[in-house]
Amino acid sequence: MLDIKLEDIVSLCKRRGFLYQGSEIYGGLSGTWDLGPLGVQLKRNILQSWWQTFVEKRSDIYGLDSAILMNPQVWQASGHLEGFVDPIVKDQVTKIDYRADHLLEDQGFEVEGLNLKELQSLIDDNQIKSPDSNPLSRLNQFNLMFQTRIGAQDERAQTVYLRPETAQGIFVNFKNLIDSFQPDLPFGIAQIGKAFRNEISPRDFVFRSREFEMLEIEYFCPPSQWQTIFDQIKIDLNDWLVSLGISLDSLTELEVPESERAHYSQRTIDMQFAFPFGEKELYGLAYRGDYDLRQHQDLSGKSLEYIDKKTQSKFLPVCIEPSIGVERLLLAVLQSAYKVDEENKRVYLALPAGLAPIKYAVSPLVNNKADLITKALTVFKNLQAKYGCVVWDDHGNIGKRYRRQDEVGTPACIVIDFQTLEDDTVTVRSRDDLQQKRLKISAL
Amino acid sequence: MLDIKLEDIVSLCKRRGFLYQGSEIYGGLSGTWDLGPLGVQLKRNILQSWWQTFVEKRSDIYGLDSAILMNPQVWQASGHLEGFVDPIVKDQVTKIDYRADHLLEDQGFEVEGLNLKELQSLIDDNQIKSPDSNPLSRLNQFNLMFQTRIGAQDERAQTVYLRPETAQGIFVNFKNLIDSFQPDLPFGIAQIGKAFRNEISPRDFVFRSREFEMLEIEYFCPPSQWQTIFDQIKIDLNDWLVSLGISLDSLTELEVPESERAHYSQRTIDMQFAFPFGEKELYGLAYRGDYDLRQHQDLSGKSLEYIDKKTQSKFLPVCIEPSIGVERLLLAVLQSAYKVDEENKRVYLALPAGLAPIKYAVSPLVNNKADLITKALTVFKNLQAKYGCVVWDDHGNIGKRYRRQDEVGTPACIVIDFQTLEDDTVTVRSRDDLQQKRLKISAL
Repeated sequence: MLDIKLEDIVSLCKRRGFLYQGSEIYGGLSGTWDLGPLGVQLKRNILQSWWQTFVEKRSDIYGLDSAILMNPQVWQASGHLEGFVDPIVKDQVTKIDYRADHLLEDQGFEVEGLNLKELQSLIDDNQIKSPDSNPLSRLNQFNLMFQTRIGAQDERAQTVYLRPETAQGIFVNFKNLIDSFQPDLPFGIAQIGKAFRNEISPRDFVFRSREFEMLEIEYFCPPSQWQTIFDQIKIDLNDWLVSLGISLDSLTELEVPESERAHYSQRTIDMQFAFPFGEKELYGLAYRGDYDLRQHQDLSGKSLEYIDKKTQSKFLPVCIEPSIGVERLLLAVLQSAYKVDEENKRVYLALPAGLAPIKYAVSPLVNNKADLITKALTVFKNLQAKYGCVVWDDHGNIGKRYRRQDEVGTPACIVIDFQTLEDDTVTVRSRDDLQQKRLKISAL
Repeated sequence: MLDIKLEDIVSLCKRRGFLYQGSEIYGGLSGTWDLGPLGVQLKRNILQSWWQTFVEKRSDIYGLDSAILMNPQVWQASGHLEGFVDPIVKDQVTKIDYRADHLLEDQGFEVEGLNLKELQSLIDDNQIKSPDSNPLSRLNQFNLMFQTRIGAQDERAQTVYLRPETAQGIFVNFKNLIDSFQPDLPFGIAQIGKAFRNEISPRDFVFRSREFEMLEIEYFCPPSQWQTIFDQIKIDLNDWLVSLGISLDSLTELEVPESERAHYSQRTIDMQFAFPFGEKELYGLAYRGDYDLRQHQDLSGKSLEYIDKKTQSKFLPVCIEPSIGVERLLLAVLQSAYKVDEENKRVYLALPAGLAPIKYAVSPLVNNKADLITKALTVFKNLQAKYGCVVWDDHGNIGKRYRRQDEVGTPACIVIDFQTLEDDTVTVRSRDDLQQKRLKISAL
């Protein structure tokens, strides 16, 4: 898998309609991506699997869908207004900003975990220049939250932010959930939604973009239970990744050292995936203590304490947060599925059947025999009405059709031939092992 | 149905976890709403139904998921930068802005279709004051698009907009779709996604909010076919609404007169629903000609022409746009399902089973018999693992549990009693007709 080139995946994505550059006909908008017909179907299948696994089929996790625009006090309480910043330096000639850590990394320096002062020293000591070889400004901090103004131009207009994570929407609804559902601890709240970060240098295809979708859970528990639950959530997440076709061998668990963790976190891990551009975070799992609930309780003045039904004791639960970026997950799923079959001169996506954007492709053996085509169309329409995600493919010869379907991960191709007209059986050709079986139409 | 009060629905939504005010613990953020556990499940079920009906089970409509942030030229081409404006007046004392048309409407004037000059005359002639009885400024135009800055503070930073509709993301991907899929006309492109409008006065619960989700299709066809297709899409949409439990009797078709249509539209209809606050648009259906593709072709300099495979003729297709706001649809679905059963002293939501956020509630008859509880838990866990969206409910007596499930639309309540221990049958109680049947557990 390590030999797969990013260009090959990017090219497949664009050519076959998984992913396009955002606003492409206008030269794009840096850091934005549009999902084409196959990409959106694959994404929906991934999201649906997550939602079923972690919300619908569990009794301890509640779903939520909070707004992207929130009262700005949310970001004051969470610390994002003050602390959600990147270190930047400006090219003194071109006036272009760069992320200092990326600039140093690109020139071979190890910057992981360095603070602002240490980064500045590294720049000074090594007389680092911009990519255009110009001198750089001193380090500055740049807040990654997009801001906008809400309300008319009148007195009531406020500056608000596009959320940089979905998690805070969960914390501010904690009391609503308690009031509506009286859940027993431990319990979680899960959310799928868009988040936005004004990255200075979006890069690595969809890995680091300015607009992306997140899968987040805040799992609340009594302080005494967090270690056990932390480990269990990691197991649950990894099991789920395996169900998407991601091998555990492609994951590396990075225990984030204390110096790099948020001050309120006693444990954070980054689960890294071996992307073509290096091992990078696929999901994060962080113990956040009661930091968020406490901050929101303090700033809002509303009690966010949980009352134990048996003992009547009141306390702020602690929480554990698994956080996954959907587009990078999509890339990991595509990369894991991407197979080069030298022997049969083909590329195929070995996607789990549940994720495949197209479930069946239906073809007549030849496309110039009316009775074959009529029969094939009947089979196609019945499958389409029953399952959906079925395509009709009568372009070129059968071999070409198979290759085309292999490349987008269609698990089975159904061919209607002359024998079909006699005995109502069809050929079902399997993507992975290339086996062909004859099956009764009624058995499909 | 006309007797249903908005307050009753709002109260149910809040109390039972369908909808909460956005950022509520901070006093809210006007025009934003958060979906609670039952609301997000209902919304997901509605969206999934739409996607299956219009994308997965059709061969002529392709899915898409384009970014919210787009190159600003998109909004120049579409006309939104110049024309997506509301008429506002400012209270000269408080400096608060008001939508002039709403102000006039609230004072009993008919303003539908009036232009700026006519609105100004109405204000002048009737010496209209602000709600605080202060004099008003002259009319101004206020662009409804939220704007933000993208990129660092450097030379490359650009002003971009939060999309006020998803449709333009479809038009700018028209060429990508053609290149990847070579579809035959007529064909459509469908998208689900968030849109944002800086409404001066959000109102009527979730009906007019600043952040909302849209379901949009652009259906492209040769110019000669649009009338027929327009009628067919209306039938398809209405059929779908009926499948959600919305009665055709609650809809009124409003043929938008030429004076109020966009200049490029030869026909637009608003399908209005009888909300408690009046008949208001549930969806719009507009013939847009080739306006959008032509504008984007002109500004981008990229040909967006379709090439007919048989005749090789090149032309810009025309298109028809059905556009639905999800939150107002959710409200229409809830209102349509809301039943007051005087005879049995209960309120219930007669949601179609496919939409119900909870499919089954499982209870032991009494909650102090260990063997009953054990048996009931087994039934519960099996159903949960198989279907998801099953709840355990052992609070209070059976009657109270039924009422609680009725109120959120759970189609069936399953009760495990002493007979269950003997013959493995359970009581299944139906929400709508209150019938109770005994069924084998294996038959559930």
